[in-house]
Amino acid sequence: MLKIGIIGYGYWGPNLLRNFSANKDCKVLKVADIKQERLKLAKRNYQHIEVTTNIQDIINDKEIDAISIATPVDLHYEIAKSALEKGKHVWVEKPFTSTSKQAIELIELAEKKNLLIFVDHTFIYTGAVRKIKEIVEKNELGDIIYFDSVRINLGLFQRDVNVIWDLAPHDLSIMDYVLNKKVRAVCANGIANYYQYENIAHISVYFEENCFAHFHVNWTSPVKIRKMIIGGNKKMLVFDDLENFEKIKIYDAGIEVKNQNDIYKMLVDYRTGDMYSPKVNQMEALALGVQEFLESIKENRKPLTSGEEGLKVVKILEAAEQSIKEKGKLIEIN
Amino acid sequence: MLKIGIIGYGYWGPNLLRNFSANKDCKVLKVADIKQERLKLAKRNYQHIEVTTNIQDIINDKEIDAISIATPVDLHYEIAKSALEKGKHVWVEKPFTSTSKQAIELIELAEKKNLLIFVDHTFIYTGAVRKIKEIVEKNELGDIIYFDSVRINLGLFQRDVNVIWDLAPHDLSIMDYVLNKKVRAVCANGIANYYQYENIAHISVYFEENCFAHFHVNWTSPVKIRKMIIGGNKKMLVFDDLENFEKIKIYDAGIEVKNQNDIYKMLVDYRTGDMYSPKVNQMEALALGVQEFLESIKENRKPLTSGEEGLKVVKILEAAEQSIKEKGKLIEIN
Amino acid sequence: MLKIGIIGYGYWGPNLLRNFSANKDCKVLKVADIKQERLKLAKRNYQHIEVTTNIQDIINDKEIDAISIATPVDLHYEIAKSALEKGKHVWVEKPFTSTSKQAIELIELAEKKNLLIFVDHTFIYTGAVRKIKEIVEKNELGDIIYFDSVRINLGLFQRDVNVIWDLAPHDLSIMDYVLNKKVRAVCANGIANYYQYENIAHISVYFEENCFAHFHVNWTSPVKIRKMIIGGNKKMLVFDDLENFEKIKIYDAGIEVKNQNDIYKMLVDYRTGDMYSPKVNQMEALALGVQEFLESIKENRKPLTSGEEGLKVVKILEAAEQSIKEKGKLIEIN
Amino acid sequence: MLKIGIIGYGYWGPNLLRNFSANKDCKVLKVADIKQERLKLAKRNYQHIEVTTNIQDIINDKEIDAISIATPVDLHYEIAKSALEKGKHVWVEKPFTSTSKQAIELIELAEKKNLLIFVDHTFIYTGAVRKIKEIVEKNELGDIIYFDSVRINLGLFQRDVNVIWDLAPHDLSIMDYVLNKKVRAVCANGIANYYQYENIAHISVYFEENCFAHFHVNWTSPVKIRKMIIGGNKKMLVFDDLENFEKIKIYDAGIEVKNQNDIYKMLVDYRTGDMYSPKVNQMEALALGVQEFLESIKENRKPLTSGEEGLKVVKILEAAEQSIKEKGKLIEIN
Repeated sequence: MLKIGIIGYGYWGPNLLRNFSANKDCKVLKVADIKQERLKLAKRNYQHIEVTTNIQDIINDKEIDAISIATPVDLHYEIAKSALEKGKHVWVEKPFTSTSKQAIELIELAEKKNLLIFVDHTFIYTGAVRKIKEIVEKNELGDIIYFDSVRINLGLFQRDVNVIWDLAPHDLSIMDYVLNKKVRAVCANGIANYYQYENIAHISVYFEENCFAHFHVNWTSPVKIRKMIIGGNKKMLVFDDLENFEKIKIYDAGIEVKNQNDIYKMLVDYRTGDMYSPKVNQMEALALGVQEFLESIKENRKPLTSGEEGLKVVKILEAAEQSIKEKGKLIEIN
Repeated sequence: MLKIGIIGYGYWGPNLLRNFSANKDCKVLKVADIKQERLKLAKRNYQHIEVTTNIQDIINDKEIDAISIATPVDLHYEIAKSALEKGKHVWVEKPFTSTSKQAIELIELAEKKNLLIFVDHTFIYTGAVRKIKEIVEKNELGDIIYFDSVRINLGLFQRDVNVIWDLAPHDLSIMDYVLNKKVRAVCANGIANYYQYENIAHISVYFEENCFAHFHVNWTSPVKIRKMIIGGNKKMLVFDDLENFEKIKIYDAGIEVKNQNDIYKMLVDYRTGDMYSPKVNQMEALALGVQEFLESIKENRKPLTSGEEGLKVVKILEAAEQSIKEKGKLIEIN
Repeated sequence: MLKIGIIGYGYWGPNLLRNFSANKDCKVLKVADIKQERLKLAKRNYQHIEVTTNIQDIINDKEIDAISIATPVDLHYEIAKSALEKGKHVWVEKPFTSTSKQAIELIELAEKKNLLIFVDHTFIYTGAVRKIKEIVEKNELGDIIYFDSVRINLGLFQRDVNVIWDLAPHDLSIMDYVLNKKVRAVCANGIANYYQYENIAHISVYFEENCFAHFHVNWTSPVKIRKMIIGGNKKMLVFDDLENFEKIKIYDAGIEVKNQNDIYKMLVDYRTGDMYSPKVNQMEALALGVQEFLESIKENRKPLTSGEEGLKVVKILEAAEQSIKEKGKLIEIN
Repeated sequence: MLKIGIIGYGYWGPNLLRNFSANKDCKVLKVADIKQERLKLAKRNYQHIEVTTNIQDIINDKEIDAISIATPVDLHYEIAKSALEKGKHVWVEKPFTSTSKQAIELIELAEKKNLLIFVDHTFIYTGAVRKIKEIVEKNELGDIIYFDSVRINLGLFQRDVNVIWDLAPHDLSIMDYVLNKKVRAVCANGIANYYQYENIAHISVYFEENCFAHFHVNWTSPVKIRKMIIGGNKKMLVFDDLENFEKIKIYDAGIEVKNQNDIYKMLVDYRTGDMYSPKVNQMEALALGVQEFLESIKENRKPLTSGEEGLKVVKILEAAEQSIKEKGKLIEIN
């Protein structure tokens, strides 16, 4: 029975507490937050757990095997580092860290200590994204030629980061998981209408191969859209996360260009056939994430969303932030 | 009664012939196209008109007062120039010309000859765009902070231009008409998956003011989307051109940020209230465009979509094309 | 080359003229209507045809082989009868006749004269309904347990019939074609809010087998809905005619009830699996209807939508009208 | 502080326990259910409450002031009667009782004992239905001419009642609340495809005035629909409960018929103008229902959804059940 400490009980903390509590292979001992009223809330429903405003009470608790960090991102690095040094496994909310340098340091530290880092790219554990991965791996779409993602709504501004760091990690982690392609460079454009951080951003991603991805994130849209298109040279897939029943649609749509070197003889053939929408598992993603975390510890292996996956996303976020400051300048990713 | 000659009877030509024929203030005398089978088609329904494979038959016809050009874009300049030199008014399909240099030359020539250039930015004549313009001009949305446009579908590849030149003129002309703001610079990213021309592109537009626009165009999407969001600091508008009945929705949604200089004291206030969808005039845009063309000739004034409007769009297209070649490099527009 | 006369050039007449004209196996000689301005309209686009306000000019024209009737329904019987007596094949718009007695008489007359009656149940010739028929015939849905249809909008009141006679023929003809089951009885309820004819109606249809159908028609709905659900014991189908791209969806959804005789031990099993949406042929239905009309004449056989099909629909309409007058009384159909 | 006992902890019981627990003006003392595993579930989250498989433990508990009944409907009458006799207020889930006779008896008993009956017509406490009521009361729609409701899905068959008793109470209670018109008679049609109880039903409702209502309920639909149309002679309203953001739309749509007595001179005028969608309060309906229950006890007044409202719904259900057995026979409601 793994003993868990939870640090940070803000927006996401209650979901972590609920899911760790529901899993019978672990037990939450303590919850820490700087705000007393948040701790009262935790205590109300889970009377047996201890609460504290001092995170050291968790870091230093020898009974605790693993901690879960759901604080603002700029605290991730320091807390995770202390926890790893004290021999604890670490669950970190997305985005993993504020810089790739921090991410690399934590990964190395965990390796040295033979501990495990789990980055909570929750979407990877949804039935929909699992199904998409399965479809792509079976080569149903053929070669992927583009990946297009829109995540916009009238959203919760973050005080300390722009919309890229807040919303894009979801989509970047899905892209990395599904495409499994090496990113070469990033461009980003956008605007900060209200204060120093951008509320709208468009990120273009170039790959080693002839594939292209684009991410549109926006905190100031009157309508909510959560839509991805994955274009393959055989079929194309649309994922609409706001649909209750038909989240994924696969279109037997394709384009074939013949004689493409001679535009006068070029023949373009469009094909549109049937569409189908596969059934998607509705289990809560976070419960599956907790399961993967516990199992990977037990089996002493990397989880599906380890520090390495976290690092890949942070690198793109860093590059996008630099690019947006320089009005779309192409930033290479090594 | 103005006499019209139509040059080019491909995809769009039949619409022009039908609308010019239906207007009682003008009369179509001749139609030219290089393909005999297209001319037969024209003749079948309009037995009284003359058809020819030689465009000079129209350019040199002294009876003809105005010509309409619906050829591939690379022929626009030369045909329009000949026609203006022969003293004829000119209707040109979008995009106006292949380069801004050509556009400027034609505008100057028309001015010298006291002739009129009409660029067929058809959307400007739709009930929906007229209504949007009216709403923005009444300041119902407040200051516009962003303009976001998506125009994607499984489309008709053009042999001679990329997706930007094919699809973006529609949205750029709407943006110019509705926002009436000076564009400062452009970035574009995208990919050419099939032959040398890009089939997907994302264009970011920066303005003199703190406003941002983005255009997503794609010929290889399995689903068709035609959607614009115009964000104002008072209200926000969504235009979905595929909706039959509720094309425009105005959301009483807004964000107010107080103490934005001190992020620790910053207060962000979201407001979401009622939505309303105004009735939109359903008249065919092209009929209204023809009417404006004829009236502006009669009244010897610039039409709503003159060469100047065409030039503004061409400048952005040029910059976007250069930028996409240089992987998103910021291209200033003077 | 079959010679055609068209009687009635109101709302639907122009579509008939256009489609008969486009078919190279027939030729339209004359068009009749009581309104001069309608005839002018016909003449404008089709200068070679003759027009007349006297339908006898068509009935008595010996050159004409077949007539098409698109008048108000109360004139169908008389015109069709005269035409048949003069040896002409007959195309009649839906609904076939005002009474089943008239329908029977016309069918018998045509048989005696060895002439052909075509009832224009246009939907039978749409790609969507053809595809549905194909799916049902392959037994993909299993046994059909219900058929539910909604056809509502802010519509064109008819002066001389209620909403049942105006809208329901479409759906009843689809039901008859797709299900091919014998109707036993009909109940109808509704209301006349504006004048003596009902503007809203609900029709329930009972069959010889354990199957049930329902039709909702309404001229006074603020929203337009065109939706059918066909429930089978294996799969279920939804047909949404307002969808541009995914008109038909087939759901792998089912219910199995075990131990249904003992409600305490009864086990109900729900199954929901994948959905798919087959591609649908987009050809204009009316063109295919004209083709079928001409071919059935040539081959001297019953068309797919003959007088018999028209009669089956009229019988249900008659029963529904009687039932609605008697507030839902069950009316048997022999 | 009112003391509450909850009887029945099946599908709906946990929602009752959660909402009664969250309200600070009452306290849940005991929960009863015949299944031990359901009681364990209750105990897990609410460790302080007592649980029992014997409902008499609650009925006879003198500390308890009010009981909430969420059992199968055939037990409502007996439990409510015992509770009232023991001097307890009663909260009953919908439908109130199995017969109108039972309902009347309970109402009279409560009156005699000066106790209160609350029937849980939950929808009356939703923000959407409150807003609709407000709009209708302000006469924004004008006179209501029809009410059309569809509630279909692949649903949970009930063992002991047909789909009418299961699903229609929601819509009938909304109709009664919003329209406040006297029902005169009912017709119902439908089918039982699986066992003795109908899985599909269509209910037509006639009023004293010239207004008509229709209810479509179905447990065997592959798609989920929750839609109401309320037609007024000034405007029309559509309520789509599956929409997340625009649940209510009000259409400035209308029909005016002039010279309706002379169909040849009759003029029908259609009007379609703007649409608007009012903001809807998102608070949980059940929390507001609990609040109303407690306040009406405190203020010694009838709640918004009292036994009388429950009775009106039961009368229509009874009539509909009788009608469906007699294939749509009109059943008068006195």
